Amino acid sequence: MRTLHVIGIGAGDPDYVTTQAISALNDTDVFFAMDKGETKDDLVALRRLICDRFITEPGYRFVELPDPKRAAAADSAAYRDNVNEWHAARARLWAQAIQDELGPDGVGAFLAWGDPSLYDSTLRILERVAEHVEFDFDVVPGITAIQALTARHRIALNDIGAPVLITTGRQLRENGLDTDAVVMLDGECSFLSCPPDTRIWWGAYLGTPDELLESGRVGDVGDRIVARRAEARQRHGWIMDIYLLRA
Amino acid sequence: MRTLHVIGIGAGDPDYVTTQAISALNDTDVFFAMDKGETKDDLVALRRLICDRFITEPGYRFVELPDPKRAAAADSAAYRDNVNEWHAARARLWAQAIQDELGPDGVGAFLAWGDPSLYDSTLRILERVAEHVEFDFDVVPGITAIQALTARHRIALNDIGAPVLITTGRQLRENGLDTDAVVMLDGECSFLSCPPDTRIWWGAYLGTPDELLESGRVGDVGDRIVARRAEARQRHGWIMDIYLLRA
Ligand SMILES: C[S@@+](CC[C@H](N)C(=O)[O-])C[C@H]1O[C@@H](n2cnc3c(N)ncnc32)[C@H](O)[C@@H]1O
Ligand SMILES: C[S@@+](CC[C@H](N)C(=O)[O-])C[C@H]1O[C@@H](n2cnc3c(N)ncnc32)[C@H](O)[C@@H]1O
Repeated sequence: MRTLHVIGIGAGDPDYVTTQAISALNDTDVFFAMDKGETKDDLVALRRLICDRFITEPGYRFVELPDPKRAAAADSAAYRDNVNEWHAARARLWAQAIQDELGPDGVGAFLAWGDPSLYDSTLRILERVAEHVEFDFDVVPGITAIQALTARHRIALNDIGAPVLITTGRQLRENGLDTDAVVMLDGECSFLSCPPDTRIWWGAYLGTPDELLESGRVGDVGDRIVARRAEARQRHGWIMDIYLLRA
Repeated sequence: MRTLHVIGIGAGDPDYVTTQAISALNDTDVFFAMDKGETKDDLVALRRLICDRFITEPGYRFVELPDPKRAAAADSAAYRDNVNEWHAARARLWAQAIQDELGPDGVGAFLAWGDPSLYDSTLRILERVAEHVEFDFDVVPGITAIQALTARHRIALNDIGAPVLITTGRQLRENGLDTDAVVMLDGECSFLSCPPDTRIWWGAYLGTPDELLESGRVGDVGDRIVARRAEARQRHGWIMDIYLLRA
């Protein structure tokens, strides 16, 4: 039976890789990788760096999977529909690639940025790939951008015994801030919609040499974050940022 | 200046340790460890196993810190007060130990189960230790029980673009379930307070040889989880479990 590892490689620093991930990397014959458009160069480079540094078994290779285009969405419902269609299209491409590139006892892997369970589509797509081709798979957890954020700011994620919401920029704008929240996937500085006394811990390119950190009251540091974010995004051509908000 | 590493060692499997954690372990002269009462034997054993397996530099040692007793609490507010006092008492003990055990350029470490930012008091206590003794410190992120849970069940944490709440058993009982939630620190099977159609993915002793997994509708698997949990807790003398709920 074909085997697939879904390997969390951590969200930035190559040293976030776990020894379990290193074992899985070394067990793999074929790495399936998605073409990520603009951000491609940096992220593909980081993946290759991780493979170069940690794989001691020779003979592995990369297979690039084309990434079908995703339509823009007006609201959360449309967003889910688009993502759904996009997953179905990917699943067909992946099934084909697994059949073509992996022998009947071959071992393939998908590298997931951070942890495979957190705002990542790999597991959901694999569920659909299973409709087209048979395989066994396991999941190797990874350090998420949330852990990178709190480690670099040296802070606790939660207040004592208190809950924390993991959410997106879109959800924050639609629903406001009722409880402490970590916000991901925010292209629009949605923290600006929070009261000025809200505390924010912000980080971009966490764990990389380009890391940026800011913290304080939204009223004090909000504009500086907007400016640094815009400048960095312009310079790199892409940005990944995340923040924790406390009311 | 004295340096302290706060090192996340992952929530169960020793192979959850990152290469960053391995570097920090090898950089450490003195490991400060808390006496954890009942669960002590297993957890202290796991910590020592991690040190034995991953530390190649000889000459490190363990210093056990006594753990002041914590009073029982009737509700969330009393819980926070008790935890507060307990942190102050710990901070005094830790400051003393750091002064006594670490030379002026010594490197100490605290090993945090899972990730140091998630329902862990180390960082909050260190903040208070800084009132008594000067030191520099950094934080090494670790694989949380949340990542272990989703990896072992091979599931996504969040629905597409949807939020997830990280919360406690107590909070779930007090506030109910409005959004998908990961529940930690639950000694009372609080999922039983959810409607029977709620889906649950439950795991205990994740990443260890004693791992237990269950999933399904609360109405179908709730009683079985209660029974397996009670039996395992009895046998081991302690239990750590966590679950994801989807309405
Ligand atoms: C598609 S999600 C993937 C998250 C990933 N699976 C994880 O575990 O962190 C991408 C989002 O994660 C966050 N992110 C990932 N890596 C980051 C980094 N190194 N610095 C800042 N944010 C990051 C950003 O919010 C970004 O929009
Ligand atoms: C004091 S908190 C510490 C959490 C830890 N810092 C982390 O990152 O996972 C302890 C709670 O974590 C969860 N937990 C930790 N390790 C676990 C494991 N191996 N299996 C199941 N639950 C675990 C349980 O909910 C437990 O009550």
